Amino acid sequence: MLRTAVVLLFAATALPAQWNVMPMPSSIQAGQGRLTIGQEFSAGPDTGSSADPRLSRAIDRMSRRIAKLTGMTLHEGSQKILLLQVQGGGQAVQSLDEDESYRLTVDSRQAVIAAANPLGAMHGMETFYQLIANAADGWGVPAVTIDDRPRFAWRGLMMDVSRHFMPLEVIRRNLDGMAAVKLNVFHWHLSDDQGFRMESKRFPKLQQQGSDGQFYTQDEVRGIVEYARDRGIRVVPEFDIPGHSTSWLVGYPELAAGPGPYQILRTWGITDPAMDPARPEVYTFLDAFIGEMASLFPDAYFHIGGDEVNGKQWAANTADIPGFMRLHGFKTEHDLQAYFNQQVEKIVTKYGRRMEGWDEILNPALPKNIVIQSWRGAKSLSDAARQGYQGILSSGYYLDHIEPSSKLYLVDPLGSQADSLGKNEQARILGGEVCMWAEYISEENVDSRIWPRAAAIAERLWSPAAVRDVSGMYRRLDVIDGELDLIGLRHNSNYRLMLERLAGSDGIEPLATLADVLEPGALGQRHHVNPNYAQSTPLNRLVDAARPDSAIARHFGELVDRFVANPNDAAARSEISRWLTLWAGNNARLQPLMEKRQILRDAAPVSAMLAGISALALAGRTGPDIQTALKPVGEVNIAVAPAIARLAALGRRF
Amino acid sequence: MLRTAVVLLFAATALPAQWNVMPMPSSIQAGQGRLTIGQEFSAGPDTGSSADPRLSRAIDRMSRRIAKLTGMTLHEGSQKILLLQVQGGGQAVQSLDEDESYRLTVDSRQAVIAAANPLGAMHGMETFYQLIANAADGWGVPAVTIDDRPRFAWRGLMMDVSRHFMPLEVIRRNLDGMAAVKLNVFHWHLSDDQGFRMESKRFPKLQQQGSDGQFYTQDEVRGIVEYARDRGIRVVPEFDIPGHSTSWLVGYPELAAGPGPYQILRTWGITDPAMDPARPEVYTFLDAFIGEMASLFPDAYFHIGGDEVNGKQWAANTADIPGFMRLHGFKTEHDLQAYFNQQVEKIVTKYGRRMEGWDEILNPALPKNIVIQSWRGAKSLSDAARQGYQGILSSGYYLDHIEPSSKLYLVDPLGSQADSLGKNEQARILGGEVCMWAEYISEENVDSRIWPRAAAIAERLWSPAAVRDVSGMYRRLDVIDGELDLIGLRHNSNYRLMLERLAGSDGIEPLATLADVLEPGALGQRHHVNPNYAQSTPLNRLVDAARPDSAIARHFGELVDRFVANPNDAAARSEISRWLTLWAGNNARLQPLMEKRQILRDAAPVSAMLAGISALALAGRTGPDIQTALKPVGEVNIAVAPAIARLAALGRRF
Repeated sequence: MLRTAVVLLFAATALPAQWNVMPMPSSIQAGQGRLTIGQEFSAGPDTGSSADPRLSRAIDRMSRRIAKLTGMTLHEGSQKILLLQVQGGGQAVQSLDEDESYRLTVDSRQAVIAAANPLGAMHGMETFYQLIANAADGWGVPAVTIDDRPRFAWRGLMMDVSRHFMPLEVIRRNLDGMAAVKLNVFHWHLSDDQGFRMESKRFPKLQQQGSDGQFYTQDEVRGIVEYARDRGIRVVPEFDIPGHSTSWLVGYPELAAGPGPYQILRTWGITDPAMDPARPEVYTFLDAFIGEMASLFPDAYFHIGGDEVNGKQWAANTADIPGFMRLHGFKTEHDLQAYFNQQVEKIVTKYGRRMEGWDEILNPALPKNIVIQSWRGAKSLSDAARQGYQGILSSGYYLDHIEPSSKLYLVDPLGSQADSLGKNEQARILGGEVCMWAEYISEENVDSRIWPRAAAIAERLWSPAAVRDVSGMYRRLDVIDGELDLIGLRHNSNYRLMLERLAGSDGIEPLATLADVLEPGALGQRHHVNPNYAQSTPLNRLVDAARPDSAIARHFGELVDRFVANPNDAAARSEISRWLTLWAGNNARLQPLMEKRQILRDAAPVSAMLAGISALALAGRTGPDIQTALKPVGEVNIAVAPAIARLAALGRRF
Repeated sequence: MLRTAVVLLFAATALPAQWNVMPMPSSIQAGQGRLTIGQEFSAGPDTGSSADPRLSRAIDRMSRRIAKLTGMTLHEGSQKILLLQVQGGGQAVQSLDEDESYRLTVDSRQAVIAAANPLGAMHGMETFYQLIANAADGWGVPAVTIDDRPRFAWRGLMMDVSRHFMPLEVIRRNLDGMAAVKLNVFHWHLSDDQGFRMESKRFPKLQQQGSDGQFYTQDEVRGIVEYARDRGIRVVPEFDIPGHSTSWLVGYPELAAGPGPYQILRTWGITDPAMDPARPEVYTFLDAFIGEMASLFPDAYFHIGGDEVNGKQWAANTADIPGFMRLHGFKTEHDLQAYFNQQVEKIVTKYGRRMEGWDEILNPALPKNIVIQSWRGAKSLSDAARQGYQGILSSGYYLDHIEPSSKLYLVDPLGSQADSLGKNEQARILGGEVCMWAEYISEENVDSRIWPRAAAIAERLWSPAAVRDVSGMYRRLDVIDGELDLIGLRHNSNYRLMLERLAGSDGIEPLATLADVLEPGALGQRHHVNPNYAQSTPLNRLVDAARPDSAIARHFGELVDRFVANPNDAAARSEISRWLTLWAGNNARLQPLMEKRQILRDAAPVSAMLAGISALALAGRTGPDIQTALKPVGEVNIAVAPAIARLAALGRRF
């Protein structure tokens, strides 16, 4: 009930443009005046507030971030400028129904955050931080009253660390980014065909033979769980079974339905190996393993994967599976997987956890307390909800599909597919998770694939449903992008380092001019161009540096829209001409470098094409090249091509 | 003898331009062909090489850096591509006379580094790394034979962590930078009037009352000493006495010659407080303190500062000093300081260390085994050498004077002042140290004050004296700048973050256009403009972001030189016109931002001035503004002003 009320309140009060907050709060009421943030700034809990050490650590971190944001050394004055009124310490293990709401009140003397627990307090501090700006009278925060709470309780980021390993510092800085945009579930995809990344003391051959030495020790995992908890983030581990499990089978081939030996998979796609549901030893193993993992991951949920079992190895098995199927009266491999899932669910439940799995696990034979993660479409989520299952949406949030924030932003867990659901059914849709699969990313460019796009999805999952203005989202996303930089995310800094590598010592300008308007191809495009990609293929080329959702292409597109709407807009015209001239001349500037460096060998066609279509548009001509440029160019896409095509179609010189 | 031979060899063989190595080796002989660096690259010690764990750690670090440089995951092949032949493990405590030479031989099959110990091996690996480049046939290193050894044994970087504290990560990344350019002494200026940064367990009030809580624990210091040793770097601690010691006196006022109580000094300059040379308790204290520090810092040298004692507190003392001076027959405060230094020298010697101090400590009463660090001029160094003292040069290497690399580069410890010295006297000049005083730097911009300029001085201290070509130095410095980026130094990345802070969310382009051609004022200029600077003054303004030795100003200056030499050079003319147009229009673009943000309040005059003189030069006119722009503008300087003035003087339109 409350949720609906808040949404209505929000829809009724159109928000002013200047609130650089993301995700947008449920309710903002502007006040009079401004709170100054000076060197005497100090933050601390009110008398009687919770003494939870999480809270004091969060306050310390926030003070350090404010010092960094403003470039001031803070000399905490006696008066608290930011006062935290926090009722309690919160739950021992952060849960799905824990209160995350807060109220932030700022007047010209003080800011106060009131919250039930450290979660709300941390969210409130992130909002407060985002409101700090430098104005004509210095650093400060506008007077305001914000009442805020999330629309969805489950707001996650999944990271695949199997296909390419991600070192701890990558995990930590991404947790920092998550906290900044109020995401609260880190879904850690710890095993897959290409690598088993978790230390097991019970079954050490898992990491010894399944990881190339790239795994997290149990101490490291405890550290990450604690780091996440400190930031209001739950950690849900995923160990994908019975398929996507080749890396388990290297050390423990006896778990498989087919004969070994097995090697770590070095390529991508769906493969045949799967655990054998007919063998009791498999469940004995999983019982011991899940028990061991449950002692490390305190979260109430445990993700067992369950996706993309092709059933081939089961069909080919002549040893135990045929008799087992006959015995149980199973007709298909689906029955077999349902049986497997039922057994695993019992184990997970035995260790006090609720089972989560991809939508393939959905089966009436499973109890209703499991959670379905939908990657195959919003429909499977609605179907599950209708059948009484809780679920979260990931279909539409796959970052490796390289879609722009504008598109990701509008995907709603309660979108049109959910319209026909009743209230109770809708309530089963808990939220969503951004997914970062790691076929084509490395520790170097993973940040640029996640950020800032994940922030747009974070807003979808937190803010009222009515917050859907794409241009407002982008305006704020540009601001948050800088905040994420300052937090230590490397979506911008590693982009420059990668361009420096590509350009060597000759200056990156012409290369950056090109790369700025390119976008990497999605999974399918890259596989199509180069079917030989493997785990060891260097991800060091132009396509790997190029970033999704080119900001320059977006700004140029807006410029073109302005000009098309008003062809007498001389400023737009002159700006368009400047860009086209830059691009038309860029191939010649880049040529010497491309000839000299093998690592730039695939830049040549796209560089020539950008120059060619820019020259056409400058001359007010169109041509087949422009149509070609709208399509993939090798592994990349020319993000400015659609806007250039619109211009060229006008037939005007620039 | 060898040193001279190597210098002659170098002078005889003019080096080809393509060797992007810094510091330049003593001898380079190009070979035939090229060694490919692919994913199978592997480095390791030869059979029979030293098993020193420092060596294997250095090899691991280098492999990771090569992976990062090339963007490749390395899959170490069975054949070692880089083979290390290292005779022994080196000395237990790295010493001044330890052999740092190496020979690097690269052919199309393999690279071999031969060295007496891990120091030489590490230097050789840095050279090897710098030679890796991407060419038309991929990553590789040209075939070459390099014989290399340092010209000077003492090649240091001093960091003042007292006036502004530098966190451990700043120290660590700067040690990484030092190792990359073969600097081998980290001189840690740990105490001064403004802060006592070292934990003492014997005298805990030193850090408790003298540091604002910003100090290094003994464990942290041990960690840094080990980190440095692992990179071939000695750590020489400095505790500045008897002056520059206010921070000691806060907790221990009884050490002072004048009455307390004392407060940490919050401003800059020379102050009166000094330890009391007449009180035996002072030496008891120093004996215990130096003994404690000697157990933490294994280096053979111990720096006692000794600079800038103004003698006022001694002169004003009526309690014990007058009688003490009469007793000893001392005439002046200099006699008193000489006595103090003699006593301290005995203590330092008692703990097995050699005393080092700034040139004020030079006095015939001190034994000849001390080392003089000259900050007051090359003459004091020569004088010391003539008197039999060893010394190192820092005069001319003060980074806070904000001089360009071109000037720093040509300062030679054996410069003209040393011409009149005999061979043995010259041999007493051990090398030099770059000094980074911290009045006007923070942990955020310290890297941009040190790097890349320190690399130019590193070359002076390592390479043969004949290597003095400034344009070649700059060409290589531009390359090393990127290497330092990749190592993790933040001279470039924090520059951008600081500009983002200044610009807020509105895009940094116009601000960067301005900042790129500005240089911060030196110590004196900043003090003159703002005499109220204090330790807590935020270092977050344009002057703090602006960097010494503007690369764009340098390139523009070269362009102007080209055009002046050949006024028919149309390309130069067009490029000049492009720059002047950019600058002439920049003030208008920056105006809205400057009006909106207090933090940019001091940008207005310099922005207007840059635009004004650029417009004049475009119009082929000169005027008084151009003369004004050659002088300081508030706390900054317009680095392109001299080149613009040269252009304007031509009276030609652009």
